[in-house]
Amino acid sequence: MSLRVSDYLAQKASQDIDKELMSPKCGFVVEQLMELAGLSVAQAVCKEYPVATTPRVLVCVGPGNNGGDGLVAARHLAHFGYSPSLLYPKQPNKELYQNLLLQCRMLNIRLVEDIDYGLNSTDLIIDAIFGVSFSGAVREPFGSVINKLKQTTIPIVSIDVPSGWDVEKGNLSGVGFEPEMLVSLTAPKECAKLFKGKYHYVGGRFIPP
Amino acid sequence: MSLRVSDYLAQKASQDIDKELMSPKCGFVVEQLMELAGLSVAQAVCKEYPVATTPRVLVCVGPGNNGGDGLVAARHLAHFGYSPSLLYPKQPNKELYQNLLLQCRMLNIRLVEDIDYGLNSTDLIIDAIFGVSFSGAVREPFGSVINKLKQTTIPIVSIDVPSGWDVEKGNLSGVGFEPEMLVSLTAPKECAKLFKGKYHYVGGRFIPP
Repeated sequence: MSLRVSDYLAQKASQDIDKELMSPKCGFVVEQLMELAGLSVAQAVCKEYPVATTPRVLVCVGPGNNGGDGLVAARHLAHFGYSPSLLYPKQPNKELYQNLLLQCRMLNIRLVEDIDYGLNSTDLIIDAIFGVSFSGAVREPFGSVINKLKQTTIPIVSIDVPSGWDVEKGNLSGVGFEPEMLVSLTAPKECAKLFKGKYHYVGGRFIPP
Repeated sequence: MSLRVSDYLAQKASQDIDKELMSPKCGFVVEQLMELAGLSVAQAVCKEYPVATTPRVLVCVGPGNNGGDGLVAARHLAHFGYSPSLLYPKQPNKELYQNLLLQCRMLNIRLVEDIDYGLNSTDLIIDAIFGVSFSGAVREPFGSVINKLKQTTIPIVSIDVPSGWDVEKGNLSGVGFEPEMLVSLTAPKECAKLFKGKYHYVGGRFIPP
């Protein structure tokens, strides 16, 4: 599959790329790709939201790969001197996610149970709830979380796809919020054309030509 | 295990840390740690040897983990615009290394068969031959490679431990060369005290307090 940096990806194309990267043809493992993705998010945050002005970062973590990227980002932000905390209401049993969570716990990254409490004690939000696999309606408890994120004035950094947005059509339903920063992974998805925030990065350089 | 950044590690302590990171206590996988290590090397190279002045990078790859870090570094350097090539005379069958090599091949990173040819067509050398596991005598074909590296004036970047050096006692035997840059992984090893080159970085931030 060939890709130019200027390409915008539809949902199926993004999922196909992920599959191809992890096929025997490319031989990447998910931990490797997630590490690069999460690190690129943490580095982009460092550039635009220096630790001196936004030391506290609430990472809202969803149940899938986008959430995994968020856990990796939280870990690197802790290494970079930030005080991240996690809102992680649905924790899958999969070893991948359990390990990433363990690595956060070892750095004393706090888990917060309540979105209101989380929002009251943070300077920045990372939205790692839903990514390219999202479609259909937002289920609880994430509906309430997204609704709170819609009301806050704290800046939000979305990983790959703003949560609640359609991967291709954006925030058409009006369910989603408008993040201040978007970090597209591998390449921007179709919905990134509709992003009106301040900062747009492309992270996770792992695509062969 | 507790670690300050100012600590210098003996050989056994470094190996214990690696084991502990990959134990159920921390839950890292080798691909994840290698990705961070190789990326940190590539980023350090970018800082001190900009692509405009040293576009061609010969990565000398050994048969173990240090070699794996080198393969990851080569891949990221290609993404950063460099033209890396690999000297990789002993390629293990392990899937880990085969995958990392495949990922280099997909970026059209060349394999060179001959160290003299490699040295004649590069601006910078990355030494990823031996790391913390090295002890005893250097075997062929690496003895000849190290000997050539000893004679060249092209700057050399060593990953973690300059190849041929004793992890603790340094280049006492005189077999090894003096690299211009050293990228220590996780923490400097004892031998780093004896490093007299220009640049010393510590890369791969993956240690809990």
